[in-house]
Amino acid sequence: MEPTVTTMDTLFAAYRRRTDALKASPNPLASGVAVIDGAFVPLAEARIPLLDQGFQHSDLTYDVPAVWDGRFFRLDDHLDRLERSCATMRLRIPLARPKLRDTVVEMVARSGIRDAYVSLIVTRGLKFVREVRPEHAVNHLYLYAMPFIWVMPPDMQITGGSAVVTRTVRRVPPGAIDPTVKNLQWGDFTRGVIEAGDRGATYPILPDGDGNITEGSGYNIFVVKDGVLRTPRRGVLEGVTRRTVLEIAAAKGWTTAVEEVPVGAVYDCDELFFTTTAGGVMPITELDGVPVGGGQVGPVAREIWEAYWHAHYDPNLSFAIDYP
Amino acid sequence: MEPTVTTMDTLFAAYRRRTDALKASPNPLASGVAVIDGAFVPLAEARIPLLDQGFQHSDLTYDVPAVWDGRFFRLDDHLDRLERSCATMRLRIPLARPKLRDTVVEMVARSGIRDAYVSLIVTRGLKFVREVRPEHAVNHLYLYAMPFIWVMPPDMQITGGSAVVTRTVRRVPPGAIDPTVKNLQWGDFTRGVIEAGDRGATYPILPDGDGNITEGSGYNIFVVKDGVLRTPRRGVLEGVTRRTVLEIAAAKGWTTAVEEVPVGAVYDCDELFFTTTAGGVMPITELDGVPVGGGQVGPVAREIWEAYWHAHYDPNLSFAIDYP
Repeated sequence: MEPTVTTMDTLFAAYRRRTDALKASPNPLASGVAVIDGAFVPLAEARIPLLDQGFQHSDLTYDVPAVWDGRFFRLDDHLDRLERSCATMRLRIPLARPKLRDTVVEMVARSGIRDAYVSLIVTRGLKFVREVRPEHAVNHLYLYAMPFIWVMPPDMQITGGSAVVTRTVRRVPPGAIDPTVKNLQWGDFTRGVIEAGDRGATYPILPDGDGNITEGSGYNIFVVKDGVLRTPRRGVLEGVTRRTVLEIAAAKGWTTAVEEVPVGAVYDCDELFFTTTAGGVMPITELDGVPVGGGQVGPVAREIWEAYWHAHYDPNLSFAIDYP
Repeated sequence: MEPTVTTMDTLFAAYRRRTDALKASPNPLASGVAVIDGAFVPLAEARIPLLDQGFQHSDLTYDVPAVWDGRFFRLDDHLDRLERSCATMRLRIPLARPKLRDTVVEMVARSGIRDAYVSLIVTRGLKFVREVRPEHAVNHLYLYAMPFIWVMPPDMQITGGSAVVTRTVRRVPPGAIDPTVKNLQWGDFTRGVIEAGDRGATYPILPDGDGNITEGSGYNIFVVKDGVLRTPRRGVLEGVTRRTVLEIAAAKGWTTAVEEVPVGAVYDCDELFFTTTAGGVMPITELDGVPVGGGQVGPVAREIWEAYWHAHYDPNLSFAIDYP
């Protein structure tokens, strides 16, 4: 039940074998599945109303748990956060929690996907928030699962990715849109991704406009200096992967700090890595075209990386899906 | 060709007669029409892919021209702005300008709707902006028209609406998401609308966090004091209705100013009104529960209102649709 996960190569090789098996599957849901109006449909055919307020005003919240090697990882932590996000936005999940949980697990089981990116989206529904008080709106739920998405591809994780601190765009401040309520209003991130590409890099780090870093397009940021791991406190999603990393570091007896992280800190660190469910622990070895630390994946990132994937087999954090 | 538009009552009465006629229409597109993948479909049946990045990351821009009494108003100004927005976001409208224009007009003509809210949405398409450089993305276009939407209903325009300056939320700053590129990332506006409702009002005015007002959920703001009309310069959409109002005021020889407008100015003014294509000129007669000026629709707002609707019959600004 707990395979030895000691190197990136070992883990990714096993993953590729599972992916090859999935590609050979005759299951029409194997390339992706969605639940629309209670029906399980192939993801590529899934459609939503043009007038859904989730599209019309991005009036929605969502969450993304993942499945790794046939096991759901921290599903209840993601469902807890989704419930908190909905409460803040005065949205109600159309399904009761046990039914929601069962449906999500059944969706993945039906697809046969053993390494899955899973998304749960709750939208305002068909009426604009000024037309109907939020407590009277009929909210919509969309669920889908697809083969695992890598914000940083496995090959790049071995050597590390390239990032920039954006200079043309800042992160939306919490006083405008609350980043702890997971949202898809990625205007600032989209600008950041385009700027990063223009500057020959892949990943943006967005400053907050007040001298601190925040997060990037779908990931939290960790800065390692003299053995201390720091990650921004404010203006960011309280990521489940971030939390897992903080727990791993604490278990190792390392010092962590969730606090304001000045922009200067990313230019004066030993290691830099990003965290997200859709990719795990993603080492950054080049910043603004200059090597970070020694320009190699550092020892802290590597140790965290291994422990992170190992945790996916911990029965306290994950459970096996009963595939048909 | 140019009816005498002298009072709100006259204009709204004629509008209601047209609306009654529309409701009696057997045309299946009369309650709304969309163009999806080149096909004209009833709006209520129009659907978009769940995986469209316009939904997945609100990665889109759009524009909203309107049709009044069978005439398209300032259509080319809206198409010009849509092209500018697309250029900034590195999106390309999938149809060439003449074909786009023809399709939009044909869509409205087919529906028979003589007073229409029209929307043109350009999304990134099916691939996330990190997966494919923007110049290689296949963008999507969605068009729809529906019976005129009133951000402020006609009845309320006669007495004036109620607003608040939000204290729980500020406008997203331009350095994060550019408000001159029309977008549907309404997280701050949604918070504002909910706060306004909680405080017994209808319309939020969002401050910029630096002591100035910006705009509200889909409208620009005008403050009138001692005969001078002021509207915020920064942090706002450069609205077509705002522009029309500025042109009307200039033609009347009134003084206008597009500049920073301090929050205090809305609490110390003679008149306050909002402008938007989906509603026109919307007088605000109550702010934070207190009457604005005399608590009645003021003379400046009324005169602008009349000239605004009159302009819809100006052949320099509008053209008649050739309905079948």
